Amino acid sequence: MPGPFTLAQIASQLGGRVVGDRQILIRQVGSLAQAGGGQIAFLSDARHRSGLSATRASAVVLGPEAEASTALPRIVHDNPYAYFARVSQLFNPVTAQPAGVHPAAIVSPSARLGARVSIGAGCVIGDGAAVGDDTCLYPRVVVYHGCRIGARGIVHSGAVIGADGFGIANEGGRWLKIPQIGGVSIGDDVEIGANTTIDRGTMDDTVVEDGVKLDNQIQIGHNCRIGAHTAMAGCVAVAGSADIGSHCSIGAGALILGHLSICDHVNVSADTVISRSIRKPGTYTGMFPFDDNESWARNTAVVRQLAKLADRVRALEKRAQGQGGGDG
Amino acid sequence: MPGPFTLAQIASQLGGRVVGDRQILIRQVGSLAQAGGGQIAFLSDARHRSGLSATRASAVVLGPEAEASTALPRIVHDNPYAYFARVSQLFNPVTAQPAGVHPAAIVSPSARLGARVSIGAGCVIGDGAAVGDDTCLYPRVVVYHGCRIGARGIVHSGAVIGADGFGIANEGGRWLKIPQIGGVSIGDDVEIGANTTIDRGTMDDTVVEDGVKLDNQIQIGHNCRIGAHTAMAGCVAVAGSADIGSHCSIGAGALILGHLSICDHVNVSADTVISRSIRKPGTYTGMFPFDDNESWARNTAVVRQLAKLADRVRALEKRAQGQGGGDG
Amino acid sequence: MPGPFTLAQIASQLGGRVVGDRQILIRQVGSLAQAGGGQIAFLSDARHRSGLSATRASAVVLGPEAEASTALPRIVHDNPYAYFARVSQLFNPVTAQPAGVHPAAIVSPSARLGARVSIGAGCVIGDGAAVGDDTCLYPRVVVYHGCRIGARGIVHSGAVIGADGFGIANEGGRWLKIPQIGGVSIGDDVEIGANTTIDRGTMDDTVVEDGVKLDNQIQIGHNCRIGAHTAMAGCVAVAGSADIGSHCSIGAGALILGHLSICDHVNVSADTVISRSIRKPGTYTGMFPFDDNESWARNTAVVRQLAKLADRVRALEKRAQGQGGGDG
Repeated sequence: MPGPFTLAQIASQLGGRVVGDRQILIRQVGSLAQAGGGQIAFLSDARHRSGLSATRASAVVLGPEAEASTALPRIVHDNPYAYFARVSQLFNPVTAQPAGVHPAAIVSPSARLGARVSIGAGCVIGDGAAVGDDTCLYPRVVVYHGCRIGARGIVHSGAVIGADGFGIANEGGRWLKIPQIGGVSIGDDVEIGANTTIDRGTMDDTVVEDGVKLDNQIQIGHNCRIGAHTAMAGCVAVAGSADIGSHCSIGAGALILGHLSICDHVNVSADTVISRSIRKPGTYTGMFPFDDNESWARNTAVVRQLAKLADRVRALEKRAQGQGGGDG
Repeated sequence: MPGPFTLAQIASQLGGRVVGDRQILIRQVGSLAQAGGGQIAFLSDARHRSGLSATRASAVVLGPEAEASTALPRIVHDNPYAYFARVSQLFNPVTAQPAGVHPAAIVSPSARLGARVSIGAGCVIGDGAAVGDDTCLYPRVVVYHGCRIGARGIVHSGAVIGADGFGIANEGGRWLKIPQIGGVSIGDDVEIGANTTIDRGTMDDTVVEDGVKLDNQIQIGHNCRIGAHTAMAGCVAVAGSADIGSHCSIGAGALILGHLSICDHVNVSADTVISRSIRKPGTYTGMFPFDDNESWARNTAVVRQLAKLADRVRALEKRAQGQGGGDG
Repeated sequence: MPGPFTLAQIASQLGGRVVGDRQILIRQVGSLAQAGGGQIAFLSDARHRSGLSATRASAVVLGPEAEASTALPRIVHDNPYAYFARVSQLFNPVTAQPAGVHPAAIVSPSARLGARVSIGAGCVIGDGAAVGDDTCLYPRVVVYHGCRIGARGIVHSGAVIGADGFGIANEGGRWLKIPQIGGVSIGDDVEIGANTTIDRGTMDDTVVEDGVKLDNQIQIGHNCRIGAHTAMAGCVAVAGSADIGSHCSIGAGALILGHLSICDHVNVSADTVISRSIRKPGTYTGMFPFDDNESWARNTAVVRQLAKLADRVRALEKRAQGQGGGDG
């Protein structure tokens, strides 16, 4: 483990403004609630300011708006969360697995592995697949034949890259399989969560561009494109042939239907189903509200009568208008 | 790779009507957008007709309604999508893994393997399990003890067949496990996607009938029956003891609750929760619409007041009626 | 397999009141529908009482309210479902895998394994991880470095314990990874389903307390706490830093958003999104109702106009009030 570093040393490497004792020694990061001596915590959201008074951390990273909320030694930075990420990277390796191919990994002789790759136990790398420099595959990742992962990638256990897309054609009530002869092409600096699956394309590649971050148990269908620097939280499903722009963020459990496109800089809220293309940046939501079970049952009964309810309101309006006068 | 074939040779094998140069040589399939010389593309949906003018494919498969939309050599068929599946199968193997048991697979001595099975690296086949003729298990599939997969099946990486169903009984606030002593019985011609899970039955078998096609990350609970030739898109969840008919299609992310039954020929739309039995063929939907975040927030606030809103409309109607006359 | 036992022997071990032939020999449990001679079935829900008349089971477990519904030898107990769980445990082992470490498992030399653990083929146990006494890991479970599982646990195939939490900070449109240096701490008597993922904490541990039961394909984000004896059905997703109480039950496909807390004894219905903290025990629901596709389309069109509809009702009310009199 690198370090320890003084606050002054940290700021000289990462920027930010030190307030208070510059020489205090930091050995590790910690949470406001659990950090102790020698640890630096952070505050990125002013709503959690109350945690500052109780913390036993030796120092804290925070934004200028919270600078005066503590007497602790501190580093002030406009983006305390990103700053904290860099501080943590200073003390901790980004991946926990040593470089090299584990003897219990199965790598096809025709696969190409970059420099300093780390391939965990139980990984299976298919014929003609490629893994870029400095990429880490944790145990039990499968990369099917011909699929490519770029440099500095991180793929967590159980992820499956390049299984067949779901291509079936109905003929007289039975399903014919459409061979999936495309591949998967994953850019640089991509992280892929545990048990996430990315299907190979039907004929062309499924594409995941540089800097994409995918959480666990995400499903990316065949022929999709996921634009650069887009992030998806856990359990998102993207159906086949969807085209998602760059710098998007997709909330947990959201579902993007197939054959549609989403432009750059779109935020999709958790649990939202995107059922048509989005051409304008912004935040889109479609989460059904929860309630205590009784209220839900009462309100939901009306949902199934909404069209009739709207008709009844229209009839009342017509009648009111027919009566003339009024304030309308 | 088989081929090349002329259009005439393809049509003599698969049917369809050739229009234009019958002798043109085809080596592979391709998408309208990416295909080049020697490739055959297809058009199954007239809405994508614009792709025809720009394609550099050597030939195309299409339906009679689009026959006149291109001067390219073409094969005309009533079901161009299914036809294309067959053309692609002509040029490409349906599975990419050679027959045989990979040395890094773990197969119980009491498991029964059919002829020409293909068992990938890292697969685990439990005691007394059975895998039928010509079935392909990609790397890292687990088949628990006593579970059976039929002939010509395809199971993708990370799938787990026969883990314990979720059988727990509450006793004074603690959970007792109910041993799951049933198995899983999977028919012929079934495809199972990556990281899909099918639980063993509590006492009887969980049953997946012939010709079922399951995409990735699907969860099938214990004691379910999935009827023949039913297809499910990614991330569908089927709770325990659901009985789903034949020739159904279940959209991505749909949820079928437990202990209910769905008749044959039912289509469930994506993201729909089936909360009671369905006894009539047809299409069923329950997707909450998304909107820009502001509109969503405004409309959703009313959802939680719907029962009251309906009461207020009723009061207005009563009042209007009380006033007599009107146009009602 | 233990047994056979007479009804009298079963009741002397597990309690309950025998009615009818006490000496009948039972060799195994079975379902009402499929059980034959020598098998004992159960009825836990009076709605399934019709199954009693047709069963060929030799005996049945049921509650006092159904005691008179059959002439079969029977054991009457207030909690027939829990009683049945115990009867089944009498005849069947709770886990199907022998104790010991499979030669095809990869266990770090620095991992600590308790007595009588069962570690299946293809499992990977990281540096400094710990697995408690009598815990069974089915094939292909991954336990990342430093994560701990308590005693008497059961973890099904494909589960991943301790992959990195989804910690990323945005800096100028790119994502910085926040090293995930916490672990996962799992209590005693916890069951974890196939392909379920539990992420390690950012700095502190993700905590799963004693007696928790998790079905398949569940995702637990970093820094969460899942309180003791809480059960979650398949495909639940819990976002980061959620704090869930004890004795909760979470229905299939539900989504718990991050940074919120749920008190003890809360039931969340299937497919419900919990988007704010819950401080009162009870049942909470947010499932959007399904309908035939046409009715759904009609009603859903109104959902997107609900705020306007409410405004129109308000206008009508105002107008009605302006007309004075009435019955309001």
